[in-house]
This record gives sequence, C-alpha cells and structure tokens, in this order.
Amino acid sequence: MLEGYQPYIRQANYYETDRMGIIHHSNYIRWFEEARLDYMEQAGFGYDKMEQMGILSPVVGVSADYKAAVTFPDTVIIKVNMTYFNGIKMNLSYEVWNRRTNVLCTTGESRHCFVGKEEFRPLSLKKQYKEIYEIFLACI
Amino acid sequence: MLEGYQPYIRQANYYETDRMGIIHHSNYIRWFEEARLDYMEQAGFGYDKMEQMGILSPVVGVSADYKAAVTFPDTVIIKVNMTYFNGIKMNLSYEVWNRRTNVLCTTGESRHCFVGKEEFRPLSLKKQYKEIYEIFLACI
Amino acid sequence: MLEGYQPYIRQANYYETDRMGIIHHSNYIRWFEEARLDYMEQAGFGYDKMEQMGILSPVVGVSADYKAAVTFPDTVIIKVNMTYFNGIKMNLSYEVWNRRTNVLCTTGESRHCFVGKEEFRPLSLKKQYKEIYEIFLACI
Amino acid sequence: MLEGYQPYIRQANYYETDRMGIIHHSNYIRWFEEARLDYMEQAGFGYDKMEQMGILSPVVGVSADYKAAVTFPDTVIIKVNMTYFNGIKMNLSYEVWNRRTNVLCTTGESRHCFVGKEEFRPLSLKKQYKEIYEIFLACI
Repeated sequence: MLEGYQPYIRQANYYETDRMGIIHHSNYIRWFEEARLDYMEQAGFGYDKMEQMGILSPVVGVSADYKAAVTFPDTVIIKVNMTYFNGIKMNLSYEVWNRRTNVLCTTGESRHCFVGKEEFRPLSLKKQYKEIYEIFLACI
Repeated sequence: MLEGYQPYIRQANYYETDRMGIIHHSNYIRWFEEARLDYMEQAGFGYDKMEQMGILSPVVGVSADYKAAVTFPDTVIIKVNMTYFNGIKMNLSYEVWNRRTNVLCTTGESRHCFVGKEEFRPLSLKKQYKEIYEIFLACI
Repeated sequence: MLEGYQPYIRQANYYETDRMGIIHHSNYIRWFEEARLDYMEQAGFGYDKMEQMGILSPVVGVSADYKAAVTFPDTVIIKVNMTYFNGIKMNLSYEVWNRRTNVLCTTGESRHCFVGKEEFRPLSLKKQYKEIYEIFLACI
Repeated sequence: MLEGYQPYIRQANYYETDRMGIIHHSNYIRWFEEARLDYMEQAGFGYDKMEQMGILSPVVGVSADYKAAVTFPDTVIIKVNMTYFNGIKMNLSYEVWNRRTNVLCTTGESRHCFVGKEEFRPLSLKKQYKEIYEIFLACI
C-alpha cells in the first residue's frame, strides 16, 4: 500500500459530455491515466522521469464498469490501488466516486508492462532499474 | 450472425497519437463505438433512429486488450460481433486489424443495456419494441 | 473586470500530447472552455445554472495563436478576460502561461451568443434575464 | 490550386457530440487536421513522409467560425484550400459542409511553419527541401 496516498480529484469537463447528457464512457479511461500518473508521482517516481530514463509503461489491457453516470460540473474522486507488481508487469485498479453524491460511479483496471523507449522491448525493472523496482514494490 | 456484414474501416488520425508515438489506448474505446454504431446501422436499426424513439443503449462495461500498436497513417479494419442479446442486455466483441500489416492489434468487448431517454429506466426491447428486438436477435 | 478573479490552473495530461511530443493544438480550445466555465462560476453564474434556466451559450467563433509548446507534466495558468458583452454577444480572451517556465504559450479568443435550449433561438439577456445580464456586465 | 482535388468526407461521431446535442466545437479543429493531412497526401507529399524526413509542420494559429451545427450521424464534406505558401509559412482555409442539408456549417483557417524534428528550428523548404517546396507551391 502506498502510505499517505491522496486520491486524485478533478472536475468533469463540459466537453467530456456527450449528447446523452453524461460523461462519455471513453473519458474514464483517460481519467484512469490521470489518476495513475498522479499515483506514480506520489509513489516517488513520476512517469515523465521514467520516460527520461528511456522506460515506457504501455497499457496492455484496460476495463471499466459503469454503475452510475457523472456529468458536468460534478467533481470526482479517483482512488488508485496497485494490485500486482513483479517488475515486469503491473496492474492497477480504480474507483471513481462522485464527490457530491458520494456514489461509486465507475470501477476499472489497467494492466501494464515496461518497455524500452527505442524498440519497445520488454524490460525487467528488477534487473535493470532496481531503484524504481523497490519504489513500486512498496506500493503493493 | 449479421448476414452480409462489412467490417468497419477507418484511418488512424494524427491527433489520436500520443507522445509514445502510437495511438493512445483510450481511442480504441471510441473506435469500438464507431464500429458498433456502423454495425447497428448495417443491422437495419441505426442508433440515431433508436434515440429518436426514446431509447438509449449506454455502455455498462468495456474492456480492451492491446497486442500491437497502431499509428498514423495506418488504416484499421474493425470487426464487430454480437455475442449476447436478450432484449435487456447486449454484448459485442471487437477485433481491430491493421490493414497494412494484417496484424490483429486490439481485441475488446462492450456490454450494454437499454434505457428510456427521460429517466434512464431499464427497458425490455422484447416487450416494448418488438421490431428492434427481432432485428438484433437475428444478429447473434 | 471581474474583481478577485483567480486564473484557472491545470496540469497538461499525457493523453493530450501527440507524437510531436507536445500538447496537440486542438486541446487548447478545450482548455479555453474549462477556463471560461471556471470564469463564469467565479463571476457568480455557472454555466450549469444557465443551462438549467434553459440558456445555452454556444461558441460562434474561436481562434488560437501558438507561441510556445506545452507538454506533460507541465502545469498551465490560464487567464480569462471578458472583452465584450452586450447581453446578446460575448467575447472572451485567453492567455495560457506555463507555470514552470513563466512563458506565455498560447493566446486565444472565443465569441459567443446566447440561445434558448429548445430551438436554439437567439436571446437577449438584457431583456429576458436581467440578473445574468447585470452579473456579466460587471465583468467587462 | 491542387488539380483533381477531392474534398475530404467523414461522418460525425457520436462521441464528438456534447450535451448541447451537437458536435463540440473543438472537434472541428481536429477535422481540419484530418482534411489537411488528406490534402497533403493528395498533393503528393503525405505528412508521415515529411516526418520521416525530419520535418514537422506545427500549427502556429487556428481559427474557426461556426455558422450551423452538425450532429451524429451527419456526414460532412470538408474542402481545403491552400491560401499562402512561401516555403517558410503555409496557410490553409477550410469549409465544412453538411452533406445532407448542403449547408456550409463551419469555416476556418490554419497557419503553419516548418521546423526540424529534433530542435524545432525553423526550416526553409525552398532552400533545404526543394522537392517538397515545388509540390506545395503548385497547390496555391
């Protein structure tokens, strides 16, 4: 568990709504990313720092379950949790709460690997980037 | 199975890439929607027609598995398949193929229900919209 | 001038970058909207409140001039200024500053009218919604 | 003028609508890009080819005037015209027509320069890339 973790808070944007009147479902995948990068920053290793070191962490799978709609100008609280990490693969789970109604609106999961920037070859953080490995390992 | 079904073809857009150099993973969720609405149109009941009748078909769940990257100016072929339909729920699966390389890049699934436009109350197409029910039933 | 106005602050998102490595230019138009809706909220009349009263304020024109690039994880400060308002039309200008480098990155403008929700017919706030008229008039 | 030029045709997507019920104004800036890249392809020098040669053509300014709304499932026809080109700068104009109603919905303009991929330094196509210079010059 990431000690002292603060969930990610952001307002739903007008341009993220669709003509159903609610936030288009695809945007939650983007919100997951915002919350994930914030989580990594809080863990002590921001994604831009990883990129500068030549490491990318592409999404190899993503899922979302929509339970209740969110719309502008709602504010959501997104709680991220690292559910798996072994230096080669990393899974994170997400909960999107509506701050006003206190309702759990969406849950989701993303799965990641680590690859080198140039040729997208799989990396083992454990072997090649011990420092980052230790930081993320402490998050589980 | 939808007889005579033609897969959905579209070009990847430059603005859909991210700084990793490839199409951002969230866009596939949007491509699934494009291909799904095209599929419904081909089935004989376009989504705009459904909306005009007061029926919405929100996404209650979505997932994607990313196997190979796509980037601008690649063209993708998206094959949609209805995997479940009972008039209350509907599931569709997706395959995104790179037309140039002939590689299966992404697979996915979306789950839907049917609700009334005004109060988002669940509908049974079988009971309330027999015509649409028959059309979609023929797709499985 | 809007007294006590606080500029809008937000972080550039990873998914807003393109493969040039910088924020795609189209996103600034969305950032302008975020900053504008925040401005209206600060002025005392949030856009959702206007919508609830049946008033929409569509964009009739928009422009942006790009002077310096922004990328993830930069934070931008967006300053909004109402440059014209007569109850029928409203113009706003925007300045996007990079908080880290203190560089003015993008300037822009948007032009708006006011229309009724149902038939998109032009409205005069002065005649029909005096309260809102006074609030926005005080912003110039 | 680009001889034999065929306007760009594409359908408005559901996810591009907002809760006003129409295509969100920011998306036209993206449509301009789609149409522009198609135009360059037709001119004989696709943007991906330019990028491979190390040339980028960033947007230095953009504007749009919205005259009539478009919504899903409308199809639009976008006509691109090169209005200025001197090897250092390039301007293009856009007309977005609704194919169904035959109404001119949006007009716009984009201004570009040419820069080297690595350091974003201004390039003169005339001096450094004569072949591309000649191709684009023939478009005016």
